Amino acid sequence: MTDVPADAPDARDITRYAIGIEYDGTCFSGWQRLSAHGEPEPTPLPTVQATVEAALSFVAGTSIELTCAGRTDAGVHAACQVAHFDSPVRRDPRGWTLGATSKLPPEVAVLWCREMPADFNARFSARARRYVYRILNRPVRPALMRQVTAWERRPLDAAAMHRAAQSLLGERDFSAFRTVHCQAAHARRDMQEIIVRRVGEVVEVEVQANAFLHHQVRNIVGSLLMVGRGERPEGWIAAVLEGRDRTLAGPTAPSAGLVFLGPRYPAEWHLPPEVTL
Amino acid sequence: MTDVPADAPDARDITRYAIGIEYDGTCFSGWQRLSAHGEPEPTPLPTVQATVEAALSFVAGTSIELTCAGRTDAGVHAACQVAHFDSPVRRDPRGWTLGATSKLPPEVAVLWCREMPADFNARFSARARRYVYRILNRPVRPALMRQVTAWERRPLDAAAMHRAAQSLLGERDFSAFRTVHCQAAHARRDMQEIIVRRVGEVVEVEVQANAFLHHQVRNIVGSLLMVGRGERPEGWIAAVLEGRDRTLAGPTAPSAGLVFLGPRYPAEWHLPPEVTL
Repeated sequence: MTDVPADAPDARDITRYAIGIEYDGTCFSGWQRLSAHGEPEPTPLPTVQATVEAALSFVAGTSIELTCAGRTDAGVHAACQVAHFDSPVRRDPRGWTLGATSKLPPEVAVLWCREMPADFNARFSARARRYVYRILNRPVRPALMRQVTAWERRPLDAAAMHRAAQSLLGERDFSAFRTVHCQAAHARRDMQEIIVRRVGEVVEVEVQANAFLHHQVRNIVGSLLMVGRGERPEGWIAAVLEGRDRTLAGPTAPSAGLVFLGPRYPAEWHLPPEVTL
Repeated sequence: MTDVPADAPDARDITRYAIGIEYDGTCFSGWQRLSAHGEPEPTPLPTVQATVEAALSFVAGTSIELTCAGRTDAGVHAACQVAHFDSPVRRDPRGWTLGATSKLPPEVAVLWCREMPADFNARFSARARRYVYRILNRPVRPALMRQVTAWERRPLDAAAMHRAAQSLLGERDFSAFRTVHCQAAHARRDMQEIIVRRVGEVVEVEVQANAFLHHQVRNIVGSLLMVGRGERPEGWIAAVLEGRDRTLAGPTAPSAGLVFLGPRYPAEWHLPPEVTL
């Protein structure tokens, strides 16, 4: 007989789950509240993490904690955030998905749930993260899609932005595109893909890297916009990267244009195709 | 000397303008408030018409009244509504566009403005109207795009919906798809195009007719959904049309999925390409 108290769940009774989460970041102060280093919040909004944890805890009948693949900033959206949690109660994946979604506000939904091996970790098992940034490029500000697009009134040369962006590919030191508040241990990231394309009045910047630094996508987009407007030559992006000096790069692009498409995991985790490499 | 009072503007001093307007219908009770026949409004919301008129009146320094191409219902969006107005003051089209937009709430924007001949009429000069209806087809409700998509959890056969919809083409009596509150003199409309297509998880229904009856698009979509779910055979749509009986058709699909893409005018009006035939 061991000395485990009756209320401590045996590790064999703990089940790990992965969930996919879609959210409109407009009404949230981000995945989690920023530390004291972050921007001040005039009116504190709920966090996505606390909101989803409350819904899952209701389904579980006990407190549930989430670990996510990519902590999004205030105002940033997610098409498929992935998080894992451990539960002492087992539920059918459909029960977690529909039960939690029924308790969530309209701007958040749980898309799917999978029972996972105990060594799966939403953050550390992910091999890549993918984002898209959308800029409505016309003289007048967006109205219908204002919550999911940024706005640039001056004409953008998307082809020039695309060519300039290719200098960011590969494993590089992205100090130039990292906010001073970034808490990562180092600034080396492997940029695997960066595509700038025009779709009608919208210019899309789609990026994939093994991981991203705090504000990295928005700082890259802010710099690419200077190239797109013709204020900087195409070669300037490579020079900014080489300089490793945040003060030489462009301004941080607004949060509304950014959607976290989701992390990507190796196929052996048997996760849905949209989050599998 | 004629007897015209000093404050009555001479017809020669009146300029007619056409404007394109984009709006998120979520926060409006429609283009205009419904008559007593319409659905009751628990909490009256502003109308798009009154909101845009107030902004234009500010720019003009005098009261401006709008006539639009297609009066959208509560919750229905517009990518490019077109309206005309007469003004005793002349302004540069850019001045109307940017001046009015600067006075509008975030969910409305004036996209463009054109000075027009006096015989242009946004409603009567339009030869066609085009709408798109978007349905997110997946087990879980939409979160990120919830304001611009309807939702169907059961799998839809978009190809069957498309085939069934083709029976609606041509000049027909659309009494079967007309709300009882419709005030049109007759129910004959010329359906010029109807396309149902799947784009990933979204099923889109895009329609063009010379004009539409009240709730016509939403009633057609509600019926096509019954075919898409396999509850009715493809030939049922033709039978419902022939029956001219609203009670035999499907339910009215929700407003959030509907976007008025805009009217279409003959090329001789020299309007922007997106509203030209």
